[in-house]
Amino acid sequence: MTQPGLERRLVDLLSARLPRSPRQLNATHESDAELVRLDGVRYGDVGADGSSPILAVTIDSIEEEIAAGLYTDPFMIGWVAVMASLSDLAAAGASPVGIVMSETLPRDCSDQLVLDLQDGIRQACLASDTFMLGGDTNFGPAIRLTGCAIGMVAGRPLRRTGIMPGDVLYSTGPLGAGNAFALARLLGDAEVPPYRPVARLREGRILSGIASACMDSSDGLFTTLRELVRLNRLGLELDAGWDSWLDRDAGNASSTKGVPPWLFLAGEHGEYELIFSVRPPDAPRLVALTAAAGRPPLRLGVFTSDPGVRVWVGDRLAAVDLPRILDIVEGARADPASCIHALLDVHDNFMTETAHGRDRARLPVDDIPV
Amino acid sequence: MTQPGLERRLVDLLSARLPRSPRQLNATHESDAELVRLDGVRYGDVGADGSSPILAVTIDSIEEEIAAGLYTDPFMIGWVAVMASLSDLAAAGASPVGIVMSETLPRDCSDQLVLDLQDGIRQACLASDTFMLGGDTNFGPAIRLTGCAIGMVAGRPLRRTGIMPGDVLYSTGPLGAGNAFALARLLGDAEVPPYRPVARLREGRILSGIASACMDSSDGLFTTLRELVRLNRLGLELDAGWDSWLDRDAGNASSTKGVPPWLFLAGEHGEYELIFSVRPPDAPRLVALTAAAGRPPLRLGVFTSDPGVRVWVGDRLAAVDLPRILDIVEGARADPASCIHALLDVHDNFMTETAHGRDRARLPVDDIPV
Repeated sequence: MTQPGLERRLVDLLSARLPRSPRQLNATHESDAELVRLDGVRYGDVGADGSSPILAVTIDSIEEEIAAGLYTDPFMIGWVAVMASLSDLAAAGASPVGIVMSETLPRDCSDQLVLDLQDGIRQACLASDTFMLGGDTNFGPAIRLTGCAIGMVAGRPLRRTGIMPGDVLYSTGPLGAGNAFALARLLGDAEVPPYRPVARLREGRILSGIASACMDSSDGLFTTLRELVRLNRLGLELDAGWDSWLDRDAGNASSTKGVPPWLFLAGEHGEYELIFSVRPPDAPRLVALTAAAGRPPLRLGVFTSDPGVRVWVGDRLAAVDLPRILDIVEGARADPASCIHALLDVHDNFMTETAHGRDRARLPVDDIPV
Repeated sequence: MTQPGLERRLVDLLSARLPRSPRQLNATHESDAELVRLDGVRYGDVGADGSSPILAVTIDSIEEEIAAGLYTDPFMIGWVAVMASLSDLAAAGASPVGIVMSETLPRDCSDQLVLDLQDGIRQACLASDTFMLGGDTNFGPAIRLTGCAIGMVAGRPLRRTGIMPGDVLYSTGPLGAGNAFALARLLGDAEVPPYRPVARLREGRILSGIASACMDSSDGLFTTLRELVRLNRLGLELDAGWDSWLDRDAGNASSTKGVPPWLFLAGEHGEYELIFSVRPPDAPRLVALTAAAGRPPLRLGVFTSDPGVRVWVGDRLAAVDLPRILDIVEGARADPASCIHALLDVHDNFMTETAHGRDRARLPVDDIPV
C-alpha cells in the first residue's frame, strides 16, 4: 500500500538485525503473509499428514491513501482495510481465523462517520466469511486503520519464491480497477467508479496445492511482476494483448479518457487479484479447478531464465523496462499528477519515436502497444 | 494506552454490529487479548487433554503518547511498542509466537532514528524471548508504531472475568513507574527516570492455571481496578498502606516532589504488571510458585459482594471514588497539567476538610491517606 521500492529498503533497514524465529518459514519479502510453524501442535481433522499447522499473519495500514486525498469515503476505508489484510492471507493460501484492527479517529469525528467505517468493516467481513476479533482505538489528526489478519494454512503455504523457468503466469481475474479509481479521483471526475476490491481467499486455498508462487496485486501488476522476477532471479515474457487484461472500469476509463491501457497495470494503486505461477503440467488442472469455483484465471505469460521483462507485440518481443516505469510511479507519489504526465510522456515519446522511425534502443519503454 | 472510558464507549460503538466468531472465547472488554479456539487442530506434545489449542492475539498502537510529547526517545518508543502488545498476551497467560508491526515514519526521518527505533524493538524482543515476524511501513507526519502480538495458550486462558467475592487481589510487582515517568516529563525535570516496562510473560504462564482473573496495569492501577469491579459486578477492599506498593521511581518522586503516593496509582500512564485475583485456598501455592520464579507478588486487597472500592486506613474503611478520580484523569488528558492540579485539589480538599472536621460525605475521595 506504499512506495514499494522505498518501503522495501526501509523494511530491510528495520529488519536487518532483528531476531528471526527459527519456526518462521519465510525470509523478509518472500511471502505476502508471515508464515510460522506451530510446533507442539498437530492437525487433527485437517491435514492427515501429522505435520504441525502453519500460522499466517499480516499487518497493513490504510493511512497514506487518506492523507493523499485518495480515500474519503468512510465505508470504503473500512472495507479496504479488511480486504487489504485478508488479501495477504489469500496470497499465502491461508484460511482466516479473524482480524484485529487498530483504529485512529479524529476526536471530533461524528457518530455517522464511525458507523460508516464500521459498516465497511462489517460488510467486508461478511463478504469474506471472516470475523473481527477485537481492536484498539486511538485519537489522532486523521483516520487511520491498521488491520492484522491471522490465518491457518492447512496444506502447503504459497510464497513469492519457487518459480522455475517455463512456469506459466496467471491472474485470478482482470486487472486495473484500483488505478481506474485513482485516476478518476485524481482528475476530479464527477462519477468515480466504486472501489470494492475483494480478497481472493477461495482462489488462494485452491492454489495452495498447485501454484509454484503467488503474490497479490495490491500495489499494481507491474510492482508484483518486478518483485516476482527479482526474488526468483528470472525473466518474464508477457503474452500479446495486455489491453485485454483490463477489467470493465479500467477498460472504460482507457477508452473514454484516451489513456493507454498499460498505465492501469503500471500504477501502484492495485486491486487484490492473486498473481501466481504454475508448472506447465499443472496448468490444465488449475484452470479446471478455478473455473469450477467461478472465476477462470487469466493467462499473463511465461517465466524465462533470461532476465528482464518482455512483451509480445504481434510476432515481435519488445522490452518493458519495469524498474524505469516504476521509478516514475514511485518517485512521483508525492505528486500523482506529475507521475501520470511523466508516464504519458513515456508513451508519447514512444509513439513519436516509432512514427519517425528513430533509434528506439534508448527509450525507457520499447514498443508498448497502444 | 488511551482514555479508557471514552475508548470503551468507542469500542462498544465500533463493535456493536460486527460479526463475532463462534470460536472466540471472550466478549468485548473481557480479556486483555482476543482468544480464539483453533478447531480442527489438536495439541500434540503440549497439553495432553486433547483439547483444541487457543490462539491469543492483540493489537496496540503507540501514537497518542508521541503526539502528547510524552515519548520522544525512539529507542523507548520501539521498546514500549513491543512490550505493550506482549503484556496483553501475558495477561491472557499466552506464550508469544511472534509480533508483526506496522510502522509510520516521517519521510525526512534520519537513518539514526530508524536504527534507534529498531534497537528498542530488538532489545525488547530479546528480553522477552520473542521474535519479530514482519511488518509494514508507511509515511506520515509523526512516528506511530502499531504492534500485533500472536500467542498460544497451552492451558486455561486468563480473562478479566471470573472473580468471586473473597478472591484475593495481587500485583506481580510494585507499581507507579509509568506515572513517575509521565510526571517527570510533564514537570520538565532535568533527570527523567528511564521507562523500560517489562511484559510479565513468565508470571502470566504461571498464573494461567491458578488465577481467577487477570488484567495488566498498562492504563494505571486505578483503571484496572475499575474494569475488574465493573466487569465482575463486585466491590473491593484495598489493604492498608498503599503507599508501600510504589516502586522505587514512584516512591522517590513522591517524596522529593511532595506528591501524594496514590496519584502514582491513579494516573493512566501505567506499567505492565499483572493485576490478578485468586481464590483464597490457591493463594499459598501462588505465592510459592511466583516467588520461586523470582518476583513475589504484592497483595492488594480482597473482592467483596458489596459494590464500590474502599481502602483500609488504620482500623477504618474509607471509600475511594474511582469513577470520579478517573473522570478527572480522563477528562484532562488534553491538558495533563490541569489534571494533576485537579487531583492535588482533591487531595488538598480532603486534607482541609479533615483538618476542619467538616462533613466529608460529599468529598469525591474520602480519607485517602497521604
